[in-house]
Amino acid sequence: MTHGFDPVAAPDAQVRAAAEQRQTQLTKPAGSLGRLEELGNWVAACQGVCPPKQFERARVVLFAGDHGVAKHGVSAYPSEVTAQMVANFLAGGAAVNALAAVAGATVRVVDIAVDGDTEPSVSQHKVRRSSGSIDREDALTDAEVTAALAAGRAIADEEIDAGADLLIAGDMGIGNTTPATVLIAVLTGTEPVAAVGRGTGVDDQGWIRKVAAIRDGMRRARPVATDPVDLLRVAAGADFAAMTGFLAQAAVRRTPVLLDGVVVTAAALVAEDIAAGAKAWWLPAHRSTEPAHDLALKHLRLTPLIDLEMRLGEGSGALTALPILRAAVATLAEMSTFADAGVSTSAEEPDTVDLAK
Amino acid sequence: MTHGFDPVAAPDAQVRAAAEQRQTQLTKPAGSLGRLEELGNWVAACQGVCPPKQFERARVVLFAGDHGVAKHGVSAYPSEVTAQMVANFLAGGAAVNALAAVAGATVRVVDIAVDGDTEPSVSQHKVRRSSGSIDREDALTDAEVTAALAAGRAIADEEIDAGADLLIAGDMGIGNTTPATVLIAVLTGTEPVAAVGRGTGVDDQGWIRKVAAIRDGMRRARPVATDPVDLLRVAAGADFAAMTGFLAQAAVRRTPVLLDGVVVTAAALVAEDIAAGAKAWWLPAHRSTEPAHDLALKHLRLTPLIDLEMRLGEGSGALTALPILRAAVATLAEMSTFADAGVSTSAEEPDTVDLAK
Repeated sequence: MTHGFDPVAAPDAQVRAAAEQRQTQLTKPAGSLGRLEELGNWVAACQGVCPPKQFERARVVLFAGDHGVAKHGVSAYPSEVTAQMVANFLAGGAAVNALAAVAGATVRVVDIAVDGDTEPSVSQHKVRRSSGSIDREDALTDAEVTAALAAGRAIADEEIDAGADLLIAGDMGIGNTTPATVLIAVLTGTEPVAAVGRGTGVDDQGWIRKVAAIRDGMRRARPVATDPVDLLRVAAGADFAAMTGFLAQAAVRRTPVLLDGVVVTAAALVAEDIAAGAKAWWLPAHRSTEPAHDLALKHLRLTPLIDLEMRLGEGSGALTALPILRAAVATLAEMSTFADAGVSTSAEEPDTVDLAK
Repeated sequence: MTHGFDPVAAPDAQVRAAAEQRQTQLTKPAGSLGRLEELGNWVAACQGVCPPKQFERARVVLFAGDHGVAKHGVSAYPSEVTAQMVANFLAGGAAVNALAAVAGATVRVVDIAVDGDTEPSVSQHKVRRSSGSIDREDALTDAEVTAALAAGRAIADEEIDAGADLLIAGDMGIGNTTPATVLIAVLTGTEPVAAVGRGTGVDDQGWIRKVAAIRDGMRRARPVATDPVDLLRVAAGADFAAMTGFLAQAAVRRTPVLLDGVVVTAAALVAEDIAAGAKAWWLPAHRSTEPAHDLALKHLRLTPLIDLEMRLGEGSGALTALPILRAAVATLAEMSTFADAGVSTSAEEPDTVDLAK
């Protein structure tokens, strides 16, 4: 079942091979740029061209949504903060704004399920006010999960049609690490206590409530775990469904994605189930302190670029790592070859230039 | 003994405390930016001002120098490559050039001991042609080690006087991981085989020759290990002595430094011995694949920002990590506070703004 998504093709293997070959000709010892070389080759394969082009329109889409479970003491913050932070994003005062400026990216905010009114400019894809409290009720109706997936897909199309050449999904929603942990724990077969983290910084009593909510959510989620859309409907929320559609459609449209933290990666797990092969288009930016994030990354067999103990969401980890991806593109695209620079290539043949080595 | 360096004072503790306090007022859960918060606080303490200012003149100084030991089969490349790469740096075709452009830094090349002629613009601090082969002879004379230390100090002064607000030392020199490994193994009490890496990518026979050269260099170095200047003279080289003076003087001048790989970190070990307390001004950018680099970082009790299996030198690791430091500065300097943005701070008091929490 494709749920409306076209099949996902892999990045271009021939271009990747050409990039690997080019790496050996650049004025550096072979392999000496380490993971930067793999990253550059991956970008070339995604773009279908070697040398790759530097990203000209890296774009963060911030998916904002509330969760009924936040009313039951699983977060250090009240649900009102979600709408307040949407206003903060629009005013340019949040971490995502500061980090996007450093990384050369721009930010779009979309209200998918904020429990309050937001500006019309961000609410045109809104599915509902808050998603249901997944410890005791379905997050969404059938119609809502379909609408949310379609919203995410439409947003990806809008951004790619407008020229986005790198996409980042970010999240904002008080309580959203609870459904993220339910999704990841169910899909990786993990016990609740091994997957639950502190989220925004809940205290010990709140952590106990969160474990109980996740246990209850997992009990409701397990019967539908093999149907990704039903899983989103029962145990996730509209923001998760929209991120899932967004991540899957980015892959369908051959656009690379830098994955952020536990919330986005939970949606990525589901998106890979909906659109098999999509993960070849995603690069995990960082490892957060949420235990479930690491579980999800290992399940997807993806190795993050940085591990700086971040746990903010908003796309903050992806934006912090984005310049590393730019560095990878720059070295592959801009460095001189041994031949062009007249640099010798080995101790055995110091006076010759042998590109076949 | 100060070897001509003024005492090193610590970064400003009061400003650091103010930065820590400001972090709790910004619109994010306390601590949620992880190491970015520590980094921002450190930059503020170095600058003596909170919020800190974004770096306006991040500057790489590339110290180029040859090593006699390279004639004895310890490297995958011939010594001629050092001068060829200096020309490549000046033409803008090397990794350091591409990475500096991404990171918003500029590059200066200095020929300290290249075994050949270079342009006058880069050779005004030249100490000699190549340093001695440390497995069998002293690297430098007394006068040369003094001149090289002074050159590094003068270069730091020149750059800081010209407005540099962040310094990076880079290295270029075929064979230079051999003296780097000697310095680190001697100063950390490590056996040669546990410290020796592949450098630019030497083969198995070359690795055996490199282990032997390092063993011989260490035998010559141990008697002078407690005198840092004599250690540089006997078992390092002019480029190492210049980097040592540069790193020590940056600290004296209260200018933060982003440390690169094994060669620069070897010089840093010696610089901390010459100018105690200097390491408080240095931030290790990355962990390379050279075993000695990790040994040196652990000895200095410094935790690197990234670990991407890089091993190029040239300041490449530091430049790849520099945007992370910029991200840390940007969040601390530019984010709104809870009070300014009207965002609630806790679940217990959803309608109040309590900055003392």
